[in-house]
Amino acid sequence: VVTPIGSDMYSWLSDLFPFNRSLTGKGVEETLMYLQGIFPNLVIHRVATGTDAYDWKIPYEWNVATAYIENSSGIRFASYQENNLHLVGYSIPVNKLLTKEELLPHLHYLDKQPNAIPYITSYYEKNWGFCLTYDEFLQLGEGPFRVVIDSELKVGHMSYGEIFIPGTTQKEILLSTYICHPSMASNELSGPVVATALACWVQENKLKHSVRILFLPETIGSIYYISRHLKDLQRNLRAGWVLTCLGDNQALSFLPSKAGNLYVDSVSRRVLSRREENFREFDWVERGSDERQYCSPGIDLPVASVMRSKYGEYPEYHTSLDNLEFVSAEGLQTSFEIYQQLIIATEQSKFPKIRVLGEPQLSRRGLYPATSDLGTFARVVDRLSVISFMDGTLDTEQIASLCKMPVDVAEGILNELDTANLIDWV
Amino acid sequence: VVTPIGSDMYSWLSDLFPFNRSLTGKGVEETLMYLQGIFPNLVIHRVATGTDAYDWKIPYEWNVATAYIENSSGIRFASYQENNLHLVGYSIPVNKLLTKEELLPHLHYLDKQPNAIPYITSYYEKNWGFCLTYDEFLQLGEGPFRVVIDSELKVGHMSYGEIFIPGTTQKEILLSTYICHPSMASNELSGPVVATALACWVQENKLKHSVRILFLPETIGSIYYISRHLKDLQRNLRAGWVLTCLGDNQALSFLPSKAGNLYVDSVSRRVLSRREENFREFDWVERGSDERQYCSPGIDLPVASVMRSKYGEYPEYHTSLDNLEFVSAEGLQTSFEIYQQLIIATEQSKFPKIRVLGEPQLSRRGLYPATSDLGTFARVVDRLSVISFMDGTLDTEQIASLCKMPVDVAEGILNELDTANLIDWV
Amino acid sequence: VVTPIGSDMYSWLSDLFPFNRSLTGKGVEETLMYLQGIFPNLVIHRVATGTDAYDWKIPYEWNVATAYIENSSGIRFASYQENNLHLVGYSIPVNKLLTKEELLPHLHYLDKQPNAIPYITSYYEKNWGFCLTYDEFLQLGEGPFRVVIDSELKVGHMSYGEIFIPGTTQKEILLSTYICHPSMASNELSGPVVATALACWVQENKLKHSVRILFLPETIGSIYYISRHLKDLQRNLRAGWVLTCLGDNQALSFLPSKAGNLYVDSVSRRVLSRREENFREFDWVERGSDERQYCSPGIDLPVASVMRSKYGEYPEYHTSLDNLEFVSAEGLQTSFEIYQQLIIATEQSKFPKIRVLGEPQLSRRGLYPATSDLGTFARVVDRLSVISFMDGTLDTEQIASLCKMPVDVAEGILNELDTANLIDWV
Repeated sequence: VVTPIGSDMYSWLSDLFPFNRSLTGKGVEETLMYLQGIFPNLVIHRVATGTDAYDWKIPYEWNVATAYIENSSGIRFASYQENNLHLVGYSIPVNKLLTKEELLPHLHYLDKQPNAIPYITSYYEKNWGFCLTYDEFLQLGEGPFRVVIDSELKVGHMSYGEIFIPGTTQKEILLSTYICHPSMASNELSGPVVATALACWVQENKLKHSVRILFLPETIGSIYYISRHLKDLQRNLRAGWVLTCLGDNQALSFLPSKAGNLYVDSVSRRVLSRREENFREFDWVERGSDERQYCSPGIDLPVASVMRSKYGEYPEYHTSLDNLEFVSAEGLQTSFEIYQQLIIATEQSKFPKIRVLGEPQLSRRGLYPATSDLGTFARVVDRLSVISFMDGTLDTEQIASLCKMPVDVAEGILNELDTANLIDWV
Repeated sequence: VVTPIGSDMYSWLSDLFPFNRSLTGKGVEETLMYLQGIFPNLVIHRVATGTDAYDWKIPYEWNVATAYIENSSGIRFASYQENNLHLVGYSIPVNKLLTKEELLPHLHYLDKQPNAIPYITSYYEKNWGFCLTYDEFLQLGEGPFRVVIDSELKVGHMSYGEIFIPGTTQKEILLSTYICHPSMASNELSGPVVATALACWVQENKLKHSVRILFLPETIGSIYYISRHLKDLQRNLRAGWVLTCLGDNQALSFLPSKAGNLYVDSVSRRVLSRREENFREFDWVERGSDERQYCSPGIDLPVASVMRSKYGEYPEYHTSLDNLEFVSAEGLQTSFEIYQQLIIATEQSKFPKIRVLGEPQLSRRGLYPATSDLGTFARVVDRLSVISFMDGTLDTEQIASLCKMPVDVAEGILNELDTANLIDWV
Repeated sequence: VVTPIGSDMYSWLSDLFPFNRSLTGKGVEETLMYLQGIFPNLVIHRVATGTDAYDWKIPYEWNVATAYIENSSGIRFASYQENNLHLVGYSIPVNKLLTKEELLPHLHYLDKQPNAIPYITSYYEKNWGFCLTYDEFLQLGEGPFRVVIDSELKVGHMSYGEIFIPGTTQKEILLSTYICHPSMASNELSGPVVATALACWVQENKLKHSVRILFLPETIGSIYYISRHLKDLQRNLRAGWVLTCLGDNQALSFLPSKAGNLYVDSVSRRVLSRREENFREFDWVERGSDERQYCSPGIDLPVASVMRSKYGEYPEYHTSLDNLEFVSAEGLQTSFEIYQQLIIATEQSKFPKIRVLGEPQLSRRGLYPATSDLGTFARVVDRLSVISFMDGTLDTEQIASLCKMPVDVAEGILNELDTANLIDWV
């Protein structure tokens, strides 16, 4: 395994773009198998339709062979073969001749973005529909129209993927992304391809933290996963992020956890502000993906989200314009690097506890100048400041902040103390 | 029972005005019986002289037949028949001929408010005295003076009134007012008449909260009541207020509980600021009535006070000028409405807890658009925000504030969720 | 015992100035015996070389007979007889002929303070060296140089002094000072002489608090003491201070405890701000003496430090210029008075708890006006405010602050209530 670069991720994203992802079905399976081709240790789990998960049940599996609208001249519109966004997600099978009046309630378009196909689903109510550009809509002409949706809703499975790369400790980093949106590039595929690239990189680098990567159908997938693994997540999770909207190379966005002051929030703000002083921090109420489940009352996991242009904040969002042109190899590469930095920062975060009562005798460990004069005292003062806060409840960053010193100075001091066998890392 | 209006309250207040209220005695009994005539379920409790209550004992019962000063020309001054404020409260019996020099130490007047009779008591030390206007004082002429006080201090009872209107839950709202001041209108009688009118209104409207209204002699009455009911109060009391100084139609004053951040404080600030943005909030150290007892160390009940012109803040306070002209039907009516709003607000306050782990599946309950597109998403986002804070420790207002939404929006959302059977109200 | 004044302290300091103090050795013993001459109840403890104390061991005992550098002309430089600062602390025995090149690495001087001898030690590494003024250094001429250090490092003792003056309660005030620096006046000797003068004063005045005064070699001394008395210190210590840098009459400096919000911090800020509104408060990271040990993680004692010109903040610090001219009788006297005030303030601090539930009946204790009118009400309101905060968790100062009243008013009220037997002092 070699760590992929932006062009690899862009290439994967291009390959995955046409697959018909939804909550379930072949598009999801194909997506997971494609990613498995890149990272063979990705495990595909399948959960049967009807399985309970908290307040939910796993839905029917949905598959589509073809779908289109044909007018009286035999011209086809909104062809699923051409773009799977044309078909409303979870549309039931239809084969009917309809007047224009009968057809209209089933058509979705955006008159203000006349060249964009909107993304519409109808997961939990039996319905059907087509999405098309306003331009195409204007060319429909008069009916009757033959509507063909060759789809099936059957008892089957919901599939999700899981990569687990054990670290040297039980503490885990969670990367959660989703694989349920059809042909949309930044809001969705950027997440799985960056996550997969991160898996390749983590695999190469033995980490202290175990890294768990979940490729889930949004909402139902995370609810199912949490319902089966809550205790483990609550015990082991150090920090988690939802990976989405990572394909453009523009904004840098942070959505904090519901608590807003957890370690995951602190390390995210730290990494982002180092990268760009004016990254944009959103409020919890602007959240919109699986952090909703991870931070639900009674679940309360430390999960946040770092994004580029955030869902709902860019005009191409949830339309066919969130496409291969909207995202770029550079954007993916930069997003990958940001998450690398989040993981590396988490790897580096430490909670030191001094092993002795009273100050340790630094001089016999070479940590106090043999000859004490004023000149060398400043360095020793910093060391003693760090020691005075090593109570096991504060991490390095907090200690550095309390000591009013740069983090690298605190880290240097902790390294010295660690070498001297004076620290329990808790 | 029909909910009274301002003119009814003003009429009751006028009837009650001349009664000789004090800590004990016929004036208190007459006052309670008058109010019982309006609200028959008012129960009159009688506690025997000498009964212990924490650090206190119920005092002797005090009654007065007549009292006056007569000069050598047979002209009477400071006649109790004319105004019961003329006699110092709890004055012992006297029938003596005194020189002016002997009389003077027993006379009280206000040279800066020459037409006002001050209100003076001497509850716990055997003493006697007369209060008169400075104008009347100047007309006394020379002595000798015959001083007649036909009073008695006997082993008897302290009386207090209690109205309890059961709600559908054990949670209680407490309205505490006092009935121990003689002829003073805003600082005192406005409290009992507004409280009685509220009883009539509560009776008509089945509430969730039980409402307890206490008509107590100030201090000794609340101490006695708390000493007998502390555990119940601590268990059941949601919010309580001391009702006093409610007769004028001018200021709007808030005295918070000692803690200052309890629900009763939050709901009071909310109701008052809706009514008048610049209501005046006082500090706990400016408190002055039975909230002192309710908030004592170790008692710590959630009791605050909402007033109009606060005691000590208007020149007529504790003089004969706090009379039927100082108060008005409009003032009483507005005060009544404010307390109605406090009660209604408390009735409406809710502490929702979501019944499921993870997000509930809103779509199968009709709370998520069957067809999901961007347009309907805003509404759903708000719903999910509210759900994310429904942990049972936050009330609706706090949730609305955290969700950065108007309270009525949060309430609408909670109603939907409640209809869907998703809430435990705790 | 008569309380000494500034001139006494200055005289003691002058006598003690030439002694060769270090972590151990005769200079320490002589210093302690001198102080014992002033305060006979000072106990001298001796701990054997090699004794364990947490992470440390008691070091060898160090004594010096003579030390100097002699050039080829027979002229002596850096003579220990002349100033014990000339010899690096804990220098090993030497008797050698050295070239100038060989000698140079063992010489310490300050080219920016050409007339100052720096203070240098080498406690925990076998080494030797001389400190001299830059002016003297320039006159050394060429070698060879005979270097004579007639010192010994032997298995012996570390000595420290302890004064314990029992109060009427087990609660203790700790004054910790150090006796390990040779001829330096403010940063060090001002501490022991002010502490000894305080002992004389405390002895004369029976206090509520027991007062413990420790004369310790810095760091190793406090670590040893804490290691043997931690539980008692944690149980009994109300407030403690490290006494150092008390000899000049200039700045007023405060170094808070690590927590920064303990009673010792509150009372220190209070006393200092009364004395000088703009006293200088340092941050914990600027600490530098035995408060480091007292506030170590897991030890966490309430110890701060009140100083005049703080170590590291004046140019004479840790040089021969911190001498008898740098300090003054006036400076010592003022520092003594400040610590008197700290002790007195601690003596006066009280944590009152009201003995009754509900308000006490003040009238029967003469604490409520027999005749209640508006004029006397203000005084009663303050009394009731104080009572309302007497929950046993707040000290008088906090109560005064919450009541928005001067502390002496609160104290007056508490005295009245105490006389009335209404307070448990907890």
